[in-house]
Amino acid sequence: MKLTTHQKQDIKNQQSQQNQTKRVTAPELENILYEAIPALDHGFVRVVDYMGNDTSIVQSARVSYGKGTKQVSTDQGLIKYLMRHWHSTPFEMCEIKYHIKLPIFIARQWIRHRTANVNEYSARYSILDKEFYLPSQKNLAAQSTSNRQGRGDILKGEQASEVLKLLKNDAERTYENYETMLNERFDGSTIDENKKGLARELARMNLTLNTYTQWYWKTDLLNLMNFLRLRADSHAQYEIRVYADIMLDTLKRWVPITYDAFLDYRVGSTEISSKGLKIVKNLIRGKNVDYEKSGLSKREWNELMTTLGQEDKLL
Amino acid sequence: MKLTTHQKQDIKNQQSQQNQTKRVTAPELENILYEAIPALDHGFVRVVDYMGNDTSIVQSARVSYGKGTKQVSTDQGLIKYLMRHWHSTPFEMCEIKYHIKLPIFIARQWIRHRTANVNEYSARYSILDKEFYLPSQKNLAAQSTSNRQGRGDILKGEQASEVLKLLKNDAERTYENYETMLNERFDGSTIDENKKGLARELARMNLTLNTYTQWYWKTDLLNLMNFLRLRADSHAQYEIRVYADIMLDTLKRWVPITYDAFLDYRVGSTEISSKGLKIVKNLIRGKNVDYEKSGLSKREWNELMTTLGQEDKLL
Amino acid sequence: MKLTTHQKQDIKNQQSQQNQTKRVTAPELENILYEAIPALDHGFVRVVDYMGNDTSIVQSARVSYGKGTKQVSTDQGLIKYLMRHWHSTPFEMCEIKYHIKLPIFIARQWIRHRTANVNEYSARYSILDKEFYLPSQKNLAAQSTSNRQGRGDILKGEQASEVLKLLKNDAERTYENYETMLNERFDGSTIDENKKGLARELARMNLTLNTYTQWYWKTDLLNLMNFLRLRADSHAQYEIRVYADIMLDTLKRWVPITYDAFLDYRVGSTEISSKGLKIVKNLIRGKNVDYEKSGLSKREWNELMTTLGQEDKLL
Amino acid sequence: MKLTTHQKQDIKNQQSQQNQTKRVTAPELENILYEAIPALDHGFVRVVDYMGNDTSIVQSARVSYGKGTKQVSTDQGLIKYLMRHWHSTPFEMCEIKYHIKLPIFIARQWIRHRTANVNEYSARYSILDKEFYLPSQKNLAAQSTSNRQGRGDILKGEQASEVLKLLKNDAERTYENYETMLNERFDGSTIDENKKGLARELARMNLTLNTYTQWYWKTDLLNLMNFLRLRADSHAQYEIRVYADIMLDTLKRWVPITYDAFLDYRVGSTEISSKGLKIVKNLIRGKNVDYEKSGLSKREWNELMTTLGQEDKLL
Repeated sequence: MKLTTHQKQDIKNQQSQQNQTKRVTAPELENILYEAIPALDHGFVRVVDYMGNDTSIVQSARVSYGKGTKQVSTDQGLIKYLMRHWHSTPFEMCEIKYHIKLPIFIARQWIRHRTANVNEYSARYSILDKEFYLPSQKNLAAQSTSNRQGRGDILKGEQASEVLKLLKNDAERTYENYETMLNERFDGSTIDENKKGLARELARMNLTLNTYTQWYWKTDLLNLMNFLRLRADSHAQYEIRVYADIMLDTLKRWVPITYDAFLDYRVGSTEISSKGLKIVKNLIRGKNVDYEKSGLSKREWNELMTTLGQEDKLL
Repeated sequence: MKLTTHQKQDIKNQQSQQNQTKRVTAPELENILYEAIPALDHGFVRVVDYMGNDTSIVQSARVSYGKGTKQVSTDQGLIKYLMRHWHSTPFEMCEIKYHIKLPIFIARQWIRHRTANVNEYSARYSILDKEFYLPSQKNLAAQSTSNRQGRGDILKGEQASEVLKLLKNDAERTYENYETMLNERFDGSTIDENKKGLARELARMNLTLNTYTQWYWKTDLLNLMNFLRLRADSHAQYEIRVYADIMLDTLKRWVPITYDAFLDYRVGSTEISSKGLKIVKNLIRGKNVDYEKSGLSKREWNELMTTLGQEDKLL
Repeated sequence: MKLTTHQKQDIKNQQSQQNQTKRVTAPELENILYEAIPALDHGFVRVVDYMGNDTSIVQSARVSYGKGTKQVSTDQGLIKYLMRHWHSTPFEMCEIKYHIKLPIFIARQWIRHRTANVNEYSARYSILDKEFYLPSQKNLAAQSTSNRQGRGDILKGEQASEVLKLLKNDAERTYENYETMLNERFDGSTIDENKKGLARELARMNLTLNTYTQWYWKTDLLNLMNFLRLRADSHAQYEIRVYADIMLDTLKRWVPITYDAFLDYRVGSTEISSKGLKIVKNLIRGKNVDYEKSGLSKREWNELMTTLGQEDKLL
Repeated sequence: MKLTTHQKQDIKNQQSQQNQTKRVTAPELENILYEAIPALDHGFVRVVDYMGNDTSIVQSARVSYGKGTKQVSTDQGLIKYLMRHWHSTPFEMCEIKYHIKLPIFIARQWIRHRTANVNEYSARYSILDKEFYLPSQKNLAAQSTSNRQGRGDILKGEQASEVLKLLKNDAERTYENYETMLNERFDGSTIDENKKGLARELARMNLTLNTYTQWYWKTDLLNLMNFLRLRADSHAQYEIRVYADIMLDTLKRWVPITYDAFLDYRVGSTEISSKGLKIVKNLIRGKNVDYEKSGLSKREWNELMTTLGQEDKLL
């Protein structure tokens, strides 16, 4: 990640603000506010604003339940209760805003989370930065043979070098031709004073999907957790997981009590189907369980046995 | 509006907070933060949190348009441009949270604005306050004879007194019977130690729709303006307009530049249909305009002539 | 439930339509289309339109995954896979529209499901029907002593009669006074020709929360299942569960394969936290488990033991 | 647009369905149901399902307003009234589903309309088709000099040929290298049996933004009109307008009465700000109007004068 001098100065200015407020604050998050945390080779994650903290969730819940909440004595107890019972609305009462720089093919996955506010850099108005994502060699995975959307072994040696070379050359060439068509370099200089450039909204179509874009992305705490649950998961594509992992850390700084409950009841939790539950009960009672009679598919059976630590029963 | 001693102390505590933050602030809004602004006879509006100010809108727009925004030199110019051209996403980048106390029949209108986060006091958990809305006499309007959903003349004399008496008596009696069914008074005391009370989730059905409820209501600036445009309008029901008018004032304190643009391009603006526009053009050219040939309904014609200050052409 | 002659005729007319279409259909749902299925004492559920069936989900999923879906050979297998892995978007591709008549206090719970389209009968425009919900005696439950939002034992004898009398009298009296204020009876007749009536938007505030309202409610299949999962659950209030149970039956008629997967993976499933999972594994291995070391609250412990059929370990 | 034999057969099968239904139908839309209407060089628009027609809007509105709607006698009158007064919820009661094939850079604009359901072809699972958008020469516009996001004159001669050559070559080369990295041709054949291919989720990043993707896109009538208002507008990018124009025609076939009202009150309508309205009134009264005193920006002034047909007053 390389910030321009101008960007660095902007961040410094933002970080040097010291305003008084009657609002609640999240001191650990304030510590990294505006900071550009590197992600992949040219991307970053910046927290640029937030609203509320753990106490805001508690406060909203207590308005909802009125005197009825008095039984739950501590903030932590109440937040765990809300998380466990999927009482989701109090978590919507906190809001966070990020500035993210990310490759376009990842942006296309990300944008499918609809309950968020977005302002993306517009390539109709302005020229995109000359930056594209190139995986490090250890992330150059082959297509998985068992999982249609997964990765298998790491490519090695000559094939790996070949892939990296293709990616790099194609990104650079298409970007250069983008400049040629625009008749303008990424630094704003004109190439040929006697020519008009192609409209930006057209020229951009020549760029490859690993070109970086950036956006402001704002969401509430509930939807942030929905995003992180999916995108910090081991089945998520590595490149989006890098962002989700950084954001998990910002979650911890922002709402530490909620973060703990989130790890216990969402990230580390397991859902067991009604058929699966019958098997669990039989296992606890020490009875034999039989795949044939389970009503589960082979894949379900194996997933369940892995979850339960019964690897000797794998099919 | 009557706050309990406990509520007053809560507000005092919240207002006495002085936190440091690197986030942007809205000083005029900070001045009234947490304050309970009276609405109707027992309701209130409180701003309890916010995120961003006018500069946040500008900042998001500049990320979107990149170098392309340099042409628009001032923040005010840019905000006006965004408002005029319905570039709505930058306005979603600010967020506000209210604590509102309001009658249930108004809450039912309000909740139809779906793009908001809500935590309402739950009458399944807790007993509702013994407070109900009674209109002041000057708001006791008769059904309009021309407008199916509007109000006409003010009721007077005996009929007005009769209406107020009915409303008051019915609200009080149904509330008392609510307490009887619950076997519990609103102050928490038990009525008959030898009886069980009816479940709260059932007893509540006996209350009238003017009973007050309360909620936390959080939304972004764009959706707040959508709400205010409809609910601060002269066609909105008076009782919700009272709330909208108070919130318009909080809008002004929060984002004064946006507020001005909102008044000019939304609240005070007029939409003219393609058929209406032909008539406007003819009027400007000094030509005769003819209802029969206009393609407008009588109602549309009259609305247009009123808008244009051509009352002499009303049908 | 009592339909007017006019309503009955309307339904008959709708049901007698026989249109040709190239769209997919759901024959079992067609059989009950437009029918008013009774709910509570005066309410009903009617399916008035729908789009898609089980094959629509499969079709959308196959567009998403392309050739990648070939491995999953049957429609049933694919739908189960989607449900199990929370691949939710294909379920959004079906849509259903209901006409519902329900008490206002239930409508207030229902409307909190925001991802739906709603047209409610407007009491600003028109007079509400003279119908209010009165629970049958077997549903007159006392407040639960263990659960803040639940029901306990059934009220009996004199107290039950007293409650029913209060509910009935208050609803009838407030409705009569509603008519008096409107100067109009529910059948449209004027009471006193020399008087104006109070505006409808005001008079309605005198009605009790068990008055019936009605609406068109349209949602997609995913959000319908989210609604049913919460509202057909044993923790939901009885009065909304009555509606949810009827809608579960319409779900079965509409998308039978999805319905089966929904029962197995959602309705009958259990979520176990990361701390809970450790205990499950130890139980399966025949080890002792200890509440003190579990990290669970007493309530969580008891919920888990009940789920696992280990009632002897309840605290 | 070139459909495979398999796709053509699929469409034929779908179109040959003749099902009986009690639902309302839209005969003109049935006529083109499932048909692939060509868009750009390789894209298409297909209507694959729908729910409701003009009468559904009327029916929902009449449920809302109850007896209050009797005054408006015709369906057309009621739909015009709803459109004019922004009573939007009845329009949400109809739903439509499209199958669209479109270039990725257009898909990125399109997806910003969040209130829709989407299933996109996944390049994590499957290989994208070897098809990319190449503008026809008459659409090769230069960047506008007056409008930051617009198009100016058409490029000509050698420069045009050069641009087309660059676009074509880059798309073809990056696609070929995509195949090389995957070790698989777009027809599914393996390139080198001794090699593993790069994971699909990685290889796709090498493709250019004019590569075609496809999706199912489902939305309600209100949000379809919001989409069309923006995307069929002359300020929209040409490439998305091509799709919007085709969809406008499907709108007309589906809900002809709503379509007419949409053209009159939305597409052809004009919004005039409060400052602008003062000027309009003065023009009608034959008074002089003065830019200096208008409070309008130069751009606003010119837009207003153009709208009013007062081109002689342009600055």
